[in-house]
Amino acid sequence: MKFVSFRTARYLPLRPGWMLSDRWVVDMELSLYWGREEGILDISPAAFPKTMFQALQHWDLWLPVIRAIDTVMRERTANRGAEAEQGEQPDRVLGALLHSTNTVHLGPPVQPSTFRDFYAFEAHVRNARARRGLNVVPEWYEFPVFYFSNPNAFLGPGEPVRRPPYTTMLDYELETACVLGKGGIDVSPEEAESMIAGYMILNDWSARDVQRAEMNVGLGPAKGKDFASSLGPWLVTPDELEPYRIGDRYDLEMTAAVNGKIYSKGNFRDIYFTFPQMIARASQGVCLAPGELIGSGTVGSGCVLELGPETCPWLQPGDTVTLTITGLGSLTNTVVE
Amino acid sequence: MKFVSFRTARYLPLRPGWMLSDRWVVDMELSLYWGREEGILDISPAAFPKTMFQALQHWDLWLPVIRAIDTVMRERTANRGAEAEQGEQPDRVLGALLHSTNTVHLGPPVQPSTFRDFYAFEAHVRNARARRGLNVVPEWYEFPVFYFSNPNAFLGPGEPVRRPPYTTMLDYELETACVLGKGGIDVSPEEAESMIAGYMILNDWSARDVQRAEMNVGLGPAKGKDFASSLGPWLVTPDELEPYRIGDRYDLEMTAAVNGKIYSKGNFRDIYFTFPQMIARASQGVCLAPGELIGSGTVGSGCVLELGPETCPWLQPGDTVTLTITGLGSLTNTVVE
Repeated sequence: MKFVSFRTARYLPLRPGWMLSDRWVVDMELSLYWGREEGILDISPAAFPKTMFQALQHWDLWLPVIRAIDTVMRERTANRGAEAEQGEQPDRVLGALLHSTNTVHLGPPVQPSTFRDFYAFEAHVRNARARRGLNVVPEWYEFPVFYFSNPNAFLGPGEPVRRPPYTTMLDYELETACVLGKGGIDVSPEEAESMIAGYMILNDWSARDVQRAEMNVGLGPAKGKDFASSLGPWLVTPDELEPYRIGDRYDLEMTAAVNGKIYSKGNFRDIYFTFPQMIARASQGVCLAPGELIGSGTVGSGCVLELGPETCPWLQPGDTVTLTITGLGSLTNTVVE
Repeated sequence: MKFVSFRTARYLPLRPGWMLSDRWVVDMELSLYWGREEGILDISPAAFPKTMFQALQHWDLWLPVIRAIDTVMRERTANRGAEAEQGEQPDRVLGALLHSTNTVHLGPPVQPSTFRDFYAFEAHVRNARARRGLNVVPEWYEFPVFYFSNPNAFLGPGEPVRRPPYTTMLDYELETACVLGKGGIDVSPEEAESMIAGYMILNDWSARDVQRAEMNVGLGPAKGKDFASSLGPWLVTPDELEPYRIGDRYDLEMTAAVNGKIYSKGNFRDIYFTFPQMIARASQGVCLAPGELIGSGTVGSGCVLELGPETCPWLQPGDTVTLTITGLGSLTNTVVE
């Protein structure tokens, strides 16, 4: 399934939902009322989640219920396929629960409580460090390393990215992210796998000039990356990626295009540490909670810093960046002044 | 005023409150009901804050109301000073709103949404980097540098600190912190000063072996500091520090003692960048929100790493660490296995 957070007008708060098809977004809260009426669930409406973050707090409870509702909805809409294809709402009763994708704005699929970004692609680490005249240190191979970033600056697909006035070296970063639907402390990689609620595309926008200066001080990147990260378009449940699984990796092509021209091309299977290994590391001595976000780090070649601004220039207002990952869709944002 | 978050039994959630005196904690929510009855405020109880974080979201609204309640309470209790000194509850009606400090457990004064820790004491930077064979880089003097840390691992005064099983080099860090009671983007240091709701003592517990290994990779400290930070005992409003003000600094002695023996001794006036300068930096291109926490970084000599484990050994289970800062009280925690 593909979960979203959407609003029907710019001034309204984001609501949780999911994609019934490319054309229809289901309102999660309203559909739970409907499911209750239909006898699919028997849970008090007072408990119904009002955000994706709230849904993730009891994901083991909500996911099966939502899957059951989704199945019934699909049966009903299949009976009226012809109309749906013509863009009509698929059913008068169901119509109250659905929005055409033309009429909704998507935000980030979830507003996470924390954001840990790892550094798990060897080629990116090698290329990025070479630009600073540094080799890959042996510690990098011993454990997955991360830094905490700002959880309050997430943007959704299509939302404009303001170029901070203090940078002339604005960059994108092509990453995969996952969000937790279960908590835990000192978990093994095997246990960690079941904590993943789903995957998303992540663009970790970076001000390279600020980042370089602050990293010289030794505390890592913070101000260089805190102004914006984009996430989306959907939160894709792990079952949807099963067709692409190769052992403990996923064979997902990852590309970044700027103004339609492909800059970056990589594959998620090349990651050195898997998400379960990263989550296990993050959970050592720390209780992880549902709704925490884990970024993979940038795939090899997945940013201007690696490619070199001589061939792929730093981003300017007006530039449109589209990240595409097999199974996870496309995430497009335009830079504005 | 000194604000706290307290519980009256270990299994209950933290409630917001403040210190009426060394002996009495006022329950904020209940006192707002009382203030309404007394005609001090006319705000719907539905809006009353249930946590310090919620109170900070509308601090400009709540702080004057709470000050007014506090004033009336002090007048009432002053009339019954003798009984109060004997440990009696100062008034039968007020008694329903008060808890003896003997009967409450304090948590961290606030559960912040984010945690930015700066690196603003020159002596600490010089000493800590010298231990790694490094000089202070020129960038350090140009702008205040920070990293994001885990906002989900705060402990209150007296709460035990679990030594993570993966470290043999556990350290404390003697810091001052402030929390925001107002948001803003691109603010000046002058504006930033008015965004500070109050100050606290911060102990940023650190696993130096893990931190050293991960910092070699270049993303800064994360796993070495994410397992625990303690905060407290109170959130002290800025007016209480006015007697210690010297220009744009505060003359606050800072000490750390391990098992009663003074290890660290510094002064908050030696900070290179002030909190308003740090907040202004953090706000560049990013909308800061009420309830975000800013740490000063460690005062010079304020950790074992600087002092050298040959004279001040790494912390062991059973060790008790007490941080004391003029005007902010004492924050004590004991290390457990």
